[in-house]
Amino acid sequence: MNVEQQALRAREASRPLAGATRSAKDAALHAMADALAKAEAAVLDANALDVRRAESVGTSAALIDRLRLTADRVSGMVNGLRSLAALPDPVGDVVRGWTNANGVQVRQVRVPFGVVGIIYEARPNVTADAAGICLKSGNAVLLRGSSSAAESNAAIVDALRTGLGATDLPADAVQLVVGPREVTNDLMAARGLVDVLIPRGGAGLIDAVVRGSQVPVIETGVGNCHLFVDATADPAMALEILLNAKTQRPSVCNAVETLLVHAEIAETFLPHALQVLQAAGVTVHGDEQTARYGEVLRAEEADYAEEYLSLDLAVAVVDSFDRAVAHIRTYSTGHSETIVTESQTSAQRFVAEIDAAAVLVNASSRFVDGGEFGFGAEIGISTQKLHARGPMGLPEMTSTKYVLTGAGQTRG
Amino acid sequence: MNVEQQALRAREASRPLAGATRSAKDAALHAMADALAKAEAAVLDANALDVRRAESVGTSAALIDRLRLTADRVSGMVNGLRSLAALPDPVGDVVRGWTNANGVQVRQVRVPFGVVGIIYEARPNVTADAAGICLKSGNAVLLRGSSSAAESNAAIVDALRTGLGATDLPADAVQLVVGPREVTNDLMAARGLVDVLIPRGGAGLIDAVVRGSQVPVIETGVGNCHLFVDATADPAMALEILLNAKTQRPSVCNAVETLLVHAEIAETFLPHALQVLQAAGVTVHGDEQTARYGEVLRAEEADYAEEYLSLDLAVAVVDSFDRAVAHIRTYSTGHSETIVTESQTSAQRFVAEIDAAAVLVNASSRFVDGGEFGFGAEIGISTQKLHARGPMGLPEMTSTKYVLTGAGQTRG
Repeated sequence: MNVEQQALRAREASRPLAGATRSAKDAALHAMADALAKAEAAVLDANALDVRRAESVGTSAALIDRLRLTADRVSGMVNGLRSLAALPDPVGDVVRGWTNANGVQVRQVRVPFGVVGIIYEARPNVTADAAGICLKSGNAVLLRGSSSAAESNAAIVDALRTGLGATDLPADAVQLVVGPREVTNDLMAARGLVDVLIPRGGAGLIDAVVRGSQVPVIETGVGNCHLFVDATADPAMALEILLNAKTQRPSVCNAVETLLVHAEIAETFLPHALQVLQAAGVTVHGDEQTARYGEVLRAEEADYAEEYLSLDLAVAVVDSFDRAVAHIRTYSTGHSETIVTESQTSAQRFVAEIDAAAVLVNASSRFVDGGEFGFGAEIGISTQKLHARGPMGLPEMTSTKYVLTGAGQTRG
Repeated sequence: MNVEQQALRAREASRPLAGATRSAKDAALHAMADALAKAEAAVLDANALDVRRAESVGTSAALIDRLRLTADRVSGMVNGLRSLAALPDPVGDVVRGWTNANGVQVRQVRVPFGVVGIIYEARPNVTADAAGICLKSGNAVLLRGSSSAAESNAAIVDALRTGLGATDLPADAVQLVVGPREVTNDLMAARGLVDVLIPRGGAGLIDAVVRGSQVPVIETGVGNCHLFVDATADPAMALEILLNAKTQRPSVCNAVETLLVHAEIAETFLPHALQVLQAAGVTVHGDEQTARYGEVLRAEEADYAEEYLSLDLAVAVVDSFDRAVAHIRTYSTGHSETIVTESQTSAQRFVAEIDAAAVLVNASSRFVDGGEFGFGAEIGISTQKLHARGPMGLPEMTSTKYVLTGAGQTRG
């Protein structure tokens, strides 16, 4: 079956799904969870094949770790599906409504997109997560996983479809798209059949989809995030936030990648901070001024542009607030940008002048996260300005429809 | 100056504009209005050149009418700018907000997109309207008008920039993009410099932009709208709504283009309806069953796919509610779809099963309009599912930003 045929089946499946009650969808999520739990052995066997192949072609240990499933990780997927069932259903929510002077009632109501395509990389747990989020939000999904996880994804989708098959909802609401590279292009060309594409993965994948797709795209994830220690910052607070934002989980998009320090506080802040960072295992790539305050690798221009996703940190001393803003404007990917300051003026200016999905004052950028926001589920963190910006929960996986109800009114 | 240079200037201008107060923006709108009023003679002279050239190349009377400016139309633009000043400012609106358990305050705040590109056809009044809407919503704008209106657009933009130049806001917030066809391609390739492109015009223009752009697009306007007269419809109400939706202003996107009549009511409804339509100057393109009830042109398949934008109407008799839904699903452009019915079940099913920006029960589709919705200004009617769907007012011309404020909180 080619992508067009799969998309047409997804479109068909999307119709009953769009009209399904919350109870029906929640029952389906539990059925999917039950079937996945039952298929644990098959999923782990399939995953072992993927892991073996990855090892045989010399895949890095980090990538193999993302690829590998364990009984715990399968349980994680199963529980993820069940917790989606516990979340409110965004479909049918009335966003706003009013009655026109002539008596026509207008309501803006949340409706599913229809068919969502997810293009993602190695982690096979995305398969179950994305399928569950799409189902709960009333969308049929086409899952285009990485070839490196082909066996795992096939086993997971097989289980999910078996679960769905035992309910009133169509199994074609969840489909895996397999085949060579060109298949991804077909998916990106399926305008009119697929309503939105969401790439999840590294910068390369996201950029390729954003540039190549004729289907509307929601861009997620790349985070070259900055933390600016303003002249008036509380040094202890700044260090605590920095350590948290850099080291608590360095591989995620809301981790800090560059530290900017106001020259007026550099001497107070940096000597101790550099020691503490080193003790925490952080490799500092600093500019000339930073090097005055401790032993650091010398930063190249490229360091400031890089999303390390590791225990590396680029550091620069800036002569003024304006220089900090200019630096961030040059290198920011528009994800999460932080200022630590005791100055109300600086805080306000930073919030106003920095253009990003999230701007933080005196708090760790690790809070920019669907879980921390209380969304319960997250399909990703949007770094684009259209439709959704920042952590995307279930309501962000919907569109709206205006419903106008009259008693024969016409326009004068 | 090439498109990239203009976009960079727009980006620079967008910064003070994003932070401008409502008072500053309203003063600028009045200054633009004053300058445009003062430039009336220059604008009309420039327009006369465009009209003469259009006539010399045999442009249709309808297009020349859209192109032609009069003192009244210039006043319309001037008043449009002043009425924008009277509208609330969406920028800074807190969409939602909460406080996390750890005390971190989260607010989702409306912010401008930044730089908006508008690609549009002959009507030069779009130049002032779009510039005003973008300015009020805090966005810098790149206006790419039609070459047929080049002189008119240049004169209008010249006046608007003169007006802006007398205020604290940067004149580069409003720029006209001129040059050969390739310039439009440059605009569509300006990802990262231009935040969103909005095409305004015919189906061909919109499709070209949607398919060719790497900048995110908001698709507006094509409306192949249907009216379904259900078996239980009140025939008098159905006819009144049909006449209004077809004839009140046939050239607009929310006018009805196809009438579907349930077979059970065809004999009651169609004979009289066809007479009344004929008397109203409507040319009916009917299927075989329609032809039983009056004299009609025979409809081809293509008639059902066409957005006439004229006093033409395609008509088909359908055997069931499901056939009506299937027909609409095949030919709808997802703009505005209407049912006339006395059946609560049919009304509910129609609203649930038809996927469009607006679905209407017993009311004219002419109500699907920013003015009728009370939005005060409208940049267009979105027929896409991302970001905005239906009439777009000022809030739809903004993005959002999460602002997190803490007192040193870190993630555990």
